[in-house]
Amino acid sequence: MTRPIVFCTDYGLLDIFVGVCHGVIARIAPEARVIDLTHHVARQDVLQGAILLARASRYMPDDAVYLAVVDPGVGSERRPIAVQARSGAHLVGPDNGLLSMAWAELGGAERAVEIAAPEVLLQPVSRTFHGRDVFAPAAAHLAMGAALEELGPPIDVGDLQALEPPRPMVAPGSVGARVISIDAFGNVQLNARPEDLDAAGLGPILQLGPRAIPRVDTFTDLRPGSVGALVDSDGFVALVVNRGSAAELLHLKVGDAVVLGG
Amino acid sequence: MTRPIVFCTDYGLLDIFVGVCHGVIARIAPEARVIDLTHHVARQDVLQGAILLARASRYMPDDAVYLAVVDPGVGSERRPIAVQARSGAHLVGPDNGLLSMAWAELGGAERAVEIAAPEVLLQPVSRTFHGRDVFAPAAAHLAMGAALEELGPPIDVGDLQALEPPRPMVAPGSVGARVISIDAFGNVQLNARPEDLDAAGLGPILQLGPRAIPRVDTFTDLRPGSVGALVDSDGFVALVVNRGSAAELLHLKVGDAVVLGG
Amino acid sequence: MTRPIVFCTDYGLLDIFVGVCHGVIARIAPEARVIDLTHHVARQDVLQGAILLARASRYMPDDAVYLAVVDPGVGSERRPIAVQARSGAHLVGPDNGLLSMAWAELGGAERAVEIAAPEVLLQPVSRTFHGRDVFAPAAAHLAMGAALEELGPPIDVGDLQALEPPRPMVAPGSVGARVISIDAFGNVQLNARPEDLDAAGLGPILQLGPRAIPRVDTFTDLRPGSVGALVDSDGFVALVVNRGSAAELLHLKVGDAVVLGG
Repeated sequence: MTRPIVFCTDYGLLDIFVGVCHGVIARIAPEARVIDLTHHVARQDVLQGAILLARASRYMPDDAVYLAVVDPGVGSERRPIAVQARSGAHLVGPDNGLLSMAWAELGGAERAVEIAAPEVLLQPVSRTFHGRDVFAPAAAHLAMGAALEELGPPIDVGDLQALEPPRPMVAPGSVGARVISIDAFGNVQLNARPEDLDAAGLGPILQLGPRAIPRVDTFTDLRPGSVGALVDSDGFVALVVNRGSAAELLHLKVGDAVVLGG
Repeated sequence: MTRPIVFCTDYGLLDIFVGVCHGVIARIAPEARVIDLTHHVARQDVLQGAILLARASRYMPDDAVYLAVVDPGVGSERRPIAVQARSGAHLVGPDNGLLSMAWAELGGAERAVEIAAPEVLLQPVSRTFHGRDVFAPAAAHLAMGAALEELGPPIDVGDLQALEPPRPMVAPGSVGARVISIDAFGNVQLNARPEDLDAAGLGPILQLGPRAIPRVDTFTDLRPGSVGALVDSDGFVALVVNRGSAAELLHLKVGDAVVLGG
Repeated sequence: MTRPIVFCTDYGLLDIFVGVCHGVIARIAPEARVIDLTHHVARQDVLQGAILLARASRYMPDDAVYLAVVDPGVGSERRPIAVQARSGAHLVGPDNGLLSMAWAELGGAERAVEIAAPEVLLQPVSRTFHGRDVFAPAAAHLAMGAALEELGPPIDVGDLQALEPPRPMVAPGSVGARVISIDAFGNVQLNARPEDLDAAGLGPILQLGPRAIPRVDTFTDLRPGSVGALVDSDGFVALVVNRGSAAELLHLKVGDAVVLGG
């Protein structure tokens, strides 16, 4: 059976980039299911893309081919790669760290190749749209059952670019965290886990600037409009407002620093 | 054959909520077609979601499984339900009325269960993302042919939450209506039907505040830029502007009251 | 095997128009793959839709059925058509020129019919939503293998509306071009090709108002934040900024005139 493709980019949906890649896939792998994870990674934000792919990976089919493109260096010397994870999943994209947190979740990178086989690339390869000309065809061939080696020459997995997830700073009585994502409801996900708050000795009421906010189990433990902290569905601490937007209320955006006291 | 899933939420497409649910579905039902009805229901607007599902239902496959999540009470005591309509369709979502107008369109609710079977739920079930952990797996199992009873214990259908579509106020010479939706073109759909205008004795020219607007059959019966009222593709009265946005011109938004005189 | 459908509209994704058309297709052609090319053509901009369809066509499956709706004349006397291209592809949409550049790319229009068969149309046909009632069912029947003639009576292909791609004005030392699209990254695509710049005798540095901008091969040939011109993945000249938005920096929008000097 054709393997499913998990597709994630920063292309947005306003133009035809995503649709054209779907067409390229359909020409090579007419039966492949394509799961559009999101095409709204913040533009050229490789780290955010890497975090989202890693978070999603445990919910995707085990035999998935990941096709991810957040690629500020397109057309430069960064290599296009395909990686086999120990789980058996494959990952296709630029060698800029974008795929690295996902393969770590999937058991680690086992083998890798540079995508270079002329029968895989869409000729002539453009300088600016490798999603269409390099990555989508490579993923579609893998979905059809091609072996990794058919895509190009091997690369030492130790040479691949990798990104580290940012860690919070934990000190007695305080945790210095960063906003790693804000969802459509305005929930503010931090890079801290409940263990970090415990390690800092923080109790059931957290100090956030002048605010004292409770740790709660769910939105409805809060009065409508009031702020709390909960463990979100990814296992991270999130600042939330019941029936409201924490991002708006607290004036927070992705990348901002947040200090939680106890 | 695997049944199709009709998927509707207020998650938006900016983050990976929708994509993750697609992954969960694909793990359980690799062949299921998923129809994304829309993921832009106004946030936490259960009534709007219910209206859209009901309007769409006559155009969806007869054997569809509806998967709908607009769920301000996630994590509280509201029950996750799966309902079998007399048409044979199934509907999966929170017991807050969201599904109720659709099952009414589909012949009424015949049987219902609370989704609780441990082999259906994604463990551990988060407190905040039941779309992923409860509803998507339940819909996927139904798409694969599971019987309703496999999802959990029965509920009396008389105990299910139901919403009533808002009705216009009809009086001699006037109809008091509400804006129930505005589409991407700025067409303003009211909760009134042409029969309501007739019942109020309104003629071919309607009075809308200081404006006299004609009832027309189609956009092109209007001069570009001028306002009229027509019966839209759902059978409701809509305020429209030929080659323009009625919502912008009339400063209307969803929920606003509109009085049509004669 | 069911043929794939390439679906392109100006409906947007905020309401259920697109999802309802997917449902109509699934009722008729339950196995058809649907490629959503984009649903964000600028509203009622038939020319932009025509350009996007034509650009995409070389990347779509050869046996595709194109379903395109940008239709300011819906409900008027403009005809709903289905066209067979010499490549074997079919195209379905309004007879307003929207399909014409794509069929030109696909070898030219070979045969055409007016969509009128009662067993194809969704009855009653609304005056405002032919995507749902006319075009989606016609495309789905073609995807299932229906012959063009089953959709309605033949039309002379010479009578079909056609649009011409706008051409740049080329003079010695200058090229007068128009912005034909701006992508999500702010790259500004002009209707000029590198041959036009050569024909005007322009060299490696172009004059754009007060700015002298280099012609480059790829984004990374530019310093971050600086403007250049490159040949984009469609073969057009595009104004770009490395790691920035040319549209924002140059205050350009679709349709604007741009004069390139040498």
